Amino acid sequence: MAKHSNKSKALREKEGIGMPDSLSLKAAKTIQEKRSKTPSAEILTNGILQGNITSLSQAITIIESTAKKHNQTAEDIIKACLPHANKSIRIGITGVPGVGKSSFIERFGMLLTTEGKRVAVLTVDPSSSVSKGSILGDKTRMEALVKNPKAFIRPSASGTSLGGVARKTREAIILCEAAGYDIIIIETVGVGQSETTVHSMTDFFLLLKLAGAGDELQGIKRGIMEMADAIAINKADGENLKAAKLAKTEFNRALHMYPPKDNGWIPKTLTCSALENEGIVEIWELISAYISKAKTTDFFQQRRHDQNKFWLLQTIENRLKSDFYENPAIKEALELQIELLSEGKVTPFQAAETLLKLT
Amino acid sequence: MAKHSNKSKALREKEGIGMPDSLSLKAAKTIQEKRSKTPSAEILTNGILQGNITSLSQAITIIESTAKKHNQTAEDIIKACLPHANKSIRIGITGVPGVGKSSFIERFGMLLTTEGKRVAVLTVDPSSSVSKGSILGDKTRMEALVKNPKAFIRPSASGTSLGGVARKTREAIILCEAAGYDIIIIETVGVGQSETTVHSMTDFFLLLKLAGAGDELQGIKRGIMEMADAIAINKADGENLKAAKLAKTEFNRALHMYPPKDNGWIPKTLTCSALENEGIVEIWELISAYISKAKTTDFFQQRRHDQNKFWLLQTIENRLKSDFYENPAIKEALELQIELLSEGKVTPFQAAETLLKLT
Repeated sequence: MAKHSNKSKALREKEGIGMPDSLSLKAAKTIQEKRSKTPSAEILTNGILQGNITSLSQAITIIESTAKKHNQTAEDIIKACLPHANKSIRIGITGVPGVGKSSFIERFGMLLTTEGKRVAVLTVDPSSSVSKGSILGDKTRMEALVKNPKAFIRPSASGTSLGGVARKTREAIILCEAAGYDIIIIETVGVGQSETTVHSMTDFFLLLKLAGAGDELQGIKRGIMEMADAIAINKADGENLKAAKLAKTEFNRALHMYPPKDNGWIPKTLTCSALENEGIVEIWELISAYISKAKTTDFFQQRRHDQNKFWLLQTIENRLKSDFYENPAIKEALELQIELLSEGKVTPFQAAETLLKLT
Repeated sequence: MAKHSNKSKALREKEGIGMPDSLSLKAAKTIQEKRSKTPSAEILTNGILQGNITSLSQAITIIESTAKKHNQTAEDIIKACLPHANKSIRIGITGVPGVGKSSFIERFGMLLTTEGKRVAVLTVDPSSSVSKGSILGDKTRMEALVKNPKAFIRPSASGTSLGGVARKTREAIILCEAAGYDIIIIETVGVGQSETTVHSMTDFFLLLKLAGAGDELQGIKRGIMEMADAIAINKADGENLKAAKLAKTEFNRALHMYPPKDNGWIPKTLTCSALENEGIVEIWELISAYISKAKTTDFFQQRRHDQNKFWLLQTIENRLKSDFYENPAIKEALELQIELLSEGKVTPFQAAETLLKLT
């Protein structure tokens, strides 16, 4: 999705963003005409259910729109798609920049399509509105997948709030599932909190790593390894091959020292080379085996149910918090209380009471 | 602290718990007399600052009291103690039941007192009001430390809410520090969420483990290992010694595969035997070295500052949430929305909007 600042005037007008009050009649008429060209929720939903990529793209744009006039259409589309959703396998893929996520997804996605699967690739990147070029970079690295009729690639919604981006991505998943995509790949940028977010919306979470470099150099955050259902050591080729194999052994040993997941799964480590197209099949076999097992034990549905509940509560709690902290009286008082706290003049609980009394 | 259900009538009256409305005049008079015997905040604070254990015990009882009449006294004591707090080293110790936490703390505490330190031992156990016997067990396992004039042992505040218990423990830490204790040991029961809570109020977090048994058997929750600043393999004696040494090597290797802590610290694994009093000195040396390093790099104060802020925000957010979820209209509607959610009839966001509109 284009950034606001880069949007053409026509596009800005179409979306109703930043229109001046002194709108001329002519301009108003033009907008009216353009508005009438936005397909209805019904038309878009029908298109989605028939697997039409243009309808899907348009619908996701409406969901991502911040314009109020799109709210109802977005709601209607989601409502109509919901009964057809929930059927895909959702795979989260993370790893720091440079680990080769896009090249991996290109190979992985192509493999899935040759097996007859339809694949949608979404990304979660709350910083995408400020970090130029990554989307372009992704597309050039997924050259074959972009052209593949069985694949649908959609970069992250723009927005600075991770919560907002996450919501739009989750809604895009529903639409992609209704459009018949069998596998939804959700890529994270591998920095900050987006991993936790993606982990909370996927059935399987794959961490890509490199051999050799330490985590501190790789920028892997603490806690990410705990979330992974599997680790793939990428770039296991050429001079790297030996180190990658050693890293695989070491990680498998380390993962055994940590508690297993709630479903008894002990995360596995594999090696792969996106460059040489090696090890990709094995990763897909591992994921398939995991999903089959999770489905026979009811863990699959349970995890999705838990995730839905998590997002429900999370949405409520985020709203409660933002209503509180964005209150100007609270903002000012909070600053003072944090100061008193750091001077050891109040306890955290006294400071909290003071603030709660202000509402 | 005794459980409510076990409290003698006199004690219940003294604390103002569950008094019937049809209180006879005689009973009221008795209470009045007993009330007047509760020392003032000033007297208790002076006692605490002089290191008087009786004053400290009485003050903690007032802080833990749920009776409204104690609120102001508690506030006054905390306020007066605050300027004298913050000087100790706070060590969290966790591990599943049976790992030997009490025996370890007995040896560890005795070692610290022989070095001239004054040691306070607090426990965080939100379930203590229902699980009988653990307090008695603790005291018999800390036979020497209980009698040691340089040591102060206080079991967990009762209460079913972890937040409530945590708050009381944090306030007890302030009082212990004002009373001149150099080391505050905070023991968790090693089940559920109490580890995260204790981790958020300590400078160093020690995980006790056993060699041999898998984590699933030991009941260690995922994420606990990520929190540990060190792991001690306890019961490294007799037939267990070899397995313990092997486990130490394996854990040290595993810990290296995980990202280091924010301050660059890579958690270490040691072995010890509380039974044979072996390895305890080495653990104390490790903790001392860690604390010295944290203090020179400012990380020590930063972590405490972050913890204070965490508790401030946590307290506010817990209140916001409980106000919301305890609203009877929300309670009823939430149940319905969760049902619709599990039937795939609404998205988590639609359900959240519906609920938020009710307030």
